[in-house]
Amino acid sequence: MNFASDNQSGVSPAVLQGIVEASKGVAGSYSNDQWTQAAVAQLSAIFEKPVQAFFVATGTASNCLALSALVQPWHSILCHSQAHIAVDELSAPELFTGGARLVLMGDDGDKLTAQCLSDTLQSLPKDRPHNQIPGALSITQCTESGLVYSVEEVRALTEVAHAADMRVHMDGARFSNALATLNCTPADITWKAGVDVLCLGASKNGALALEAVIFFDEALAKDFDLRRKRAGHLVSKGRLFGAQMCAWLKDDHWLTLARHANEIALALEQCLQPYPAIQIAWPVQANELFAVIPVALFEHLKAQGVRLNDWLPNSVPQALDIKADHLAVRFVTSFESELAEVQQLQEVLAAYFAS
Amino acid sequence: MNFASDNQSGVSPAVLQGIVEASKGVAGSYSNDQWTQAAVAQLSAIFEKPVQAFFVATGTASNCLALSALVQPWHSILCHSQAHIAVDELSAPELFTGGARLVLMGDDGDKLTAQCLSDTLQSLPKDRPHNQIPGALSITQCTESGLVYSVEEVRALTEVAHAADMRVHMDGARFSNALATLNCTPADITWKAGVDVLCLGASKNGALALEAVIFFDEALAKDFDLRRKRAGHLVSKGRLFGAQMCAWLKDDHWLTLARHANEIALALEQCLQPYPAIQIAWPVQANELFAVIPVALFEHLKAQGVRLNDWLPNSVPQALDIKADHLAVRFVTSFESELAEVQQLQEVLAAYFAS
Amino acid sequence: MNFASDNQSGVSPAVLQGIVEASKGVAGSYSNDQWTQAAVAQLSAIFEKPVQAFFVATGTASNCLALSALVQPWHSILCHSQAHIAVDELSAPELFTGGARLVLMGDDGDKLTAQCLSDTLQSLPKDRPHNQIPGALSITQCTESGLVYSVEEVRALTEVAHAADMRVHMDGARFSNALATLNCTPADITWKAGVDVLCLGASKNGALALEAVIFFDEALAKDFDLRRKRAGHLVSKGRLFGAQMCAWLKDDHWLTLARHANEIALALEQCLQPYPAIQIAWPVQANELFAVIPVALFEHLKAQGVRLNDWLPNSVPQALDIKADHLAVRFVTSFESELAEVQQLQEVLAAYFAS
Amino acid sequence: MNFASDNQSGVSPAVLQGIVEASKGVAGSYSNDQWTQAAVAQLSAIFEKPVQAFFVATGTASNCLALSALVQPWHSILCHSQAHIAVDELSAPELFTGGARLVLMGDDGDKLTAQCLSDTLQSLPKDRPHNQIPGALSITQCTESGLVYSVEEVRALTEVAHAADMRVHMDGARFSNALATLNCTPADITWKAGVDVLCLGASKNGALALEAVIFFDEALAKDFDLRRKRAGHLVSKGRLFGAQMCAWLKDDHWLTLARHANEIALALEQCLQPYPAIQIAWPVQANELFAVIPVALFEHLKAQGVRLNDWLPNSVPQALDIKADHLAVRFVTSFESELAEVQQLQEVLAAYFAS
Repeated sequence: MNFASDNQSGVSPAVLQGIVEASKGVAGSYSNDQWTQAAVAQLSAIFEKPVQAFFVATGTASNCLALSALVQPWHSILCHSQAHIAVDELSAPELFTGGARLVLMGDDGDKLTAQCLSDTLQSLPKDRPHNQIPGALSITQCTESGLVYSVEEVRALTEVAHAADMRVHMDGARFSNALATLNCTPADITWKAGVDVLCLGASKNGALALEAVIFFDEALAKDFDLRRKRAGHLVSKGRLFGAQMCAWLKDDHWLTLARHANEIALALEQCLQPYPAIQIAWPVQANELFAVIPVALFEHLKAQGVRLNDWLPNSVPQALDIKADHLAVRFVTSFESELAEVQQLQEVLAAYFAS
Repeated sequence: MNFASDNQSGVSPAVLQGIVEASKGVAGSYSNDQWTQAAVAQLSAIFEKPVQAFFVATGTASNCLALSALVQPWHSILCHSQAHIAVDELSAPELFTGGARLVLMGDDGDKLTAQCLSDTLQSLPKDRPHNQIPGALSITQCTESGLVYSVEEVRALTEVAHAADMRVHMDGARFSNALATLNCTPADITWKAGVDVLCLGASKNGALALEAVIFFDEALAKDFDLRRKRAGHLVSKGRLFGAQMCAWLKDDHWLTLARHANEIALALEQCLQPYPAIQIAWPVQANELFAVIPVALFEHLKAQGVRLNDWLPNSVPQALDIKADHLAVRFVTSFESELAEVQQLQEVLAAYFAS
Repeated sequence: MNFASDNQSGVSPAVLQGIVEASKGVAGSYSNDQWTQAAVAQLSAIFEKPVQAFFVATGTASNCLALSALVQPWHSILCHSQAHIAVDELSAPELFTGGARLVLMGDDGDKLTAQCLSDTLQSLPKDRPHNQIPGALSITQCTESGLVYSVEEVRALTEVAHAADMRVHMDGARFSNALATLNCTPADITWKAGVDVLCLGASKNGALALEAVIFFDEALAKDFDLRRKRAGHLVSKGRLFGAQMCAWLKDDHWLTLARHANEIALALEQCLQPYPAIQIAWPVQANELFAVIPVALFEHLKAQGVRLNDWLPNSVPQALDIKADHLAVRFVTSFESELAEVQQLQEVLAAYFAS
Repeated sequence: MNFASDNQSGVSPAVLQGIVEASKGVAGSYSNDQWTQAAVAQLSAIFEKPVQAFFVATGTASNCLALSALVQPWHSILCHSQAHIAVDELSAPELFTGGARLVLMGDDGDKLTAQCLSDTLQSLPKDRPHNQIPGALSITQCTESGLVYSVEEVRALTEVAHAADMRVHMDGARFSNALATLNCTPADITWKAGVDVLCLGASKNGALALEAVIFFDEALAKDFDLRRKRAGHLVSKGRLFGAQMCAWLKDDHWLTLARHANEIALALEQCLQPYPAIQIAWPVQANELFAVIPVALFEHLKAQGVRLNDWLPNSVPQALDIKADHLAVRFVTSFESELAEVQQLQEVLAAYFAS
């Protein structure tokens, strides 16, 4: 019963097979190989536009290198207060951007709104050269609380951002899970909705180590090869990334994997809903479920072999008042999750609440 | 006939098998997995000392993160003028160290000597706070010209460095090839000879993407986990690295691979020696051979399907005067090279010089 | 009637005379001059301890260089949300520290409390190596709203900080104004109360361009000469700073100047108090007064030649509800302010409210 | 007898008077004052073009901030191996540019030539994204050895630089001394000859602390106000700089001061020429004289009260072989130097060589 994190799951057999096949014999180094080229072509087809795509091994590198192409050191980057770039990437945003500053928005784990962005922009002091200049908006799809922005919500945000002369970055560590939920194309929810650069994550959804920085505006990508190299993120055997991406995209494998994870998350929601002691924070939209539960239950679950993490108190709605003997938790499902795990959990819960 | 670069070779089947086996099921993320722990333990055994080892995907990240643990932004790093950190890593040394400066030594591709280091230290201006303070010596094993430092040579260099209050970094992108040549233990040629941190490269010798930063002095490693994270080099599925390293080290596989590459390089040397038109720059000591050859021959070889790179004119001895219609070239062999490739080359050469 | 800012005032004649006298003839460059040495000695006497003091031209350089000596790039710096380092120094904190991050505390312009600091420390995620590690507390004396921390308040804050393994920085841009109010010695309110480094500002209180970074712990100052030099803040004619500081400190001139400014501010408070339309935000403690006033009055005052700035809405107490046709303003007095200016203002106000 | 450095001299009475006059009363802060505006207008008049000019306190700040506007972190900056930015500014070039690298040219203290620049550009490896891309040329006027580039020499250098897509920076710490020698206008030797940004130094020639970064291409200056602010180099009482510059430029005062220093240097040359034991390195062209002298003489001069610095052995021509008991020295004159000092020195020398 692993609900701790999708980055603790293994590698999809199809993606692994792609690595194995590409690992034989001579190939051009530093991305000059057939797999990398094929992968970029596939991405261009999927996004219905010639894109500039660059592959790296980690989400932190992907996000922060992408942001460094959007802002100067005197810019600020507006993002959710629980964004991965704000909470989980140490000072990588500052290192890669040369010192740009994050401005945090959002009181709880809910989605950002165009209104919130407008209000924040309005409230920021604007006395040049003393104050940071807003340079980029970063949004996360799915969000830090597993929610999915609709096309309209993304467009509303990017319109405010662009009107304020800012660029838009989408942290898509779980983009495939969002897409599996949305009834739209990859293009609809990205560049057609105003996103300038997408960090498309594959590591959490079946790949071994693979993140793609995808620029929809060629001009922004101009020096990205240099940015990646000077950060030590240009691997010599680039086929590692190219082969993974080809296998991951082939025959909609990425979406198949994501759909599976999302389905298990919905099953999990149904499993938890009957118990009043478990307050589900937000309706499940992708592959994550946040809830407030008694500490005693949390301890019991861990003792029963459920892998599960406690989470930030403010990741749940402000309306949810967390009592002293309760805590917020996060359940995550992955491409590897099995319905049997949910059923096993159901038995553990039934037994617990029956006693 | 691939003599272009060892990073164009594929992955050793044993290492690939390690990746495949580790790719299934749930494991702790961010290096908290069994393979990573086993790999560090194996390295400690091999180096006869508890080491602190950190894995990353590229040589640039490995070298520059390691250097960042040794120097402050007001320090200089002394290295060979053809060192990888000086020539091939863009401004990664500056990015990771926060602005330390490289001081270049060595006129041609020969090894650095203790005398050269002493003379350089002597000549540097020392007016605090105006001048950089020498903070680290970086040596490359094998060197940029495929030469191997003996234990005595390393010790002589590190003694001068330590006497000047400097730390010593060894770029070991081809450390296994050097070790296969030397009649000594891994400990002998590193910490016992005064090396503070070794960047042990596996990517050029059978791994897919694997470099290890190995600290022999625990104090220097104190914040390295933070340095790696903030540079985006902490992968979520750390087993990728752990599994490669375990397989690479097991049963001396790394040395077996390196010995093979070195043997092919010796065969290559014998193949080239008979032709006076080919001036071999340095006797082959590991898996590289540098030579000065006629441009016409270079073009002919490429036309015959020989993968081969031209190289920096000053990588060969100053005594070798490169005539106008000649150029310097580099031949590299790898674990995957076959004797048949050398034999094929021999036929090409015989036919060329016979005509 | 200048109440806009104390950095718009001129130079005290005594300080100017110091500059004039030091400007003749040959003197050692780069701080190797008699004035600089005398100034450091005077500071050591005043702070009852041998201090390490370094002079620079701006508050931004002073604060951010000082912070760079306290933290690493993976540290956070906790400070008030309206601190000068947070609002008015662009990305200088990030540049000088190599990317440390500010964590903001405090909802309105009130002083920080030990409780607030504790709560913030408690709430920060602590998952190494993903989250920033609190490295320094920065407090401002006088605060951003002109309030003065007592010795007990400073000590309570530094105790929490030190217990959390953090260093303490005091932004003393208006330190002399605070000291003029407090009934204690300079030592009492700094190192004896737990402050590790004080940025002592003179530019706002009679000097031309002079800020001193004063380390009470010699170890922290070890490489500060290098930090200052590499930021371009080591002036060649260091006597510029040394001479100003000698003159400023001599015969308690700095305190005389500060006391005068504070007295004018108290007179200003008395002048404004009678009018219910003017809501004074905080009782005057030094040389600043914040208030909420009708926009119409603000416009009228400016039209009458009163130099005055509008200010951040959240610089006043949350209890003060700013109505739509009102705004927050800041009055600042300086060593150069004259009682006549307050009297003039009184007449303007009397006429305005009489009509 | 002070020949140690022109930055050990005092302040010209006219410049000091300018400071004194500007130090009274209220003025706009942060460069929003009448003196700063007047100074920029004067510079535009002198350079026959609307310039963007920014004032800072040190040469290091001036040079490195200017360079940061010309290059990206993946660029290299080509300069003389003895340039101030290469030898005397610690790692400020790296800090301000975010990690650009200096590439050093020139074996001895002679001027750079277009040929040398071409050859260097030719020799640099150009394998993107592995190698730095040449981004700027920095030349020093007067040079590090007191030599003066002619208009033709500057133009030849900038033509090569611009053809290679590089920008040109001129370190003019002693620009006024060069101009006093040249028979041309300030415009002729700067933008008309291809210079993109001039760092005009006043501190070594009569000012207290004043350097101007002057952009001839407005586009390059676009964000310079932000660069200056985030480096802590925007002083609050900007009139300090504006007033100095106005006084320094008024009635060609800067050139009068420079001419005086140059004349004393010529007198010094005549004073030293008769003695075969004193080998003058280069004919005097501005206010510096380099020579090789016996160590015994150097010690004697210091004992007689002559302020004088020994200098880098390679600052003199390679043809000058420095014997074991000799050393290189640098004599500098300033606006404050007096003919009497040279006469005094003459007596010391006459007595020394007579004995």
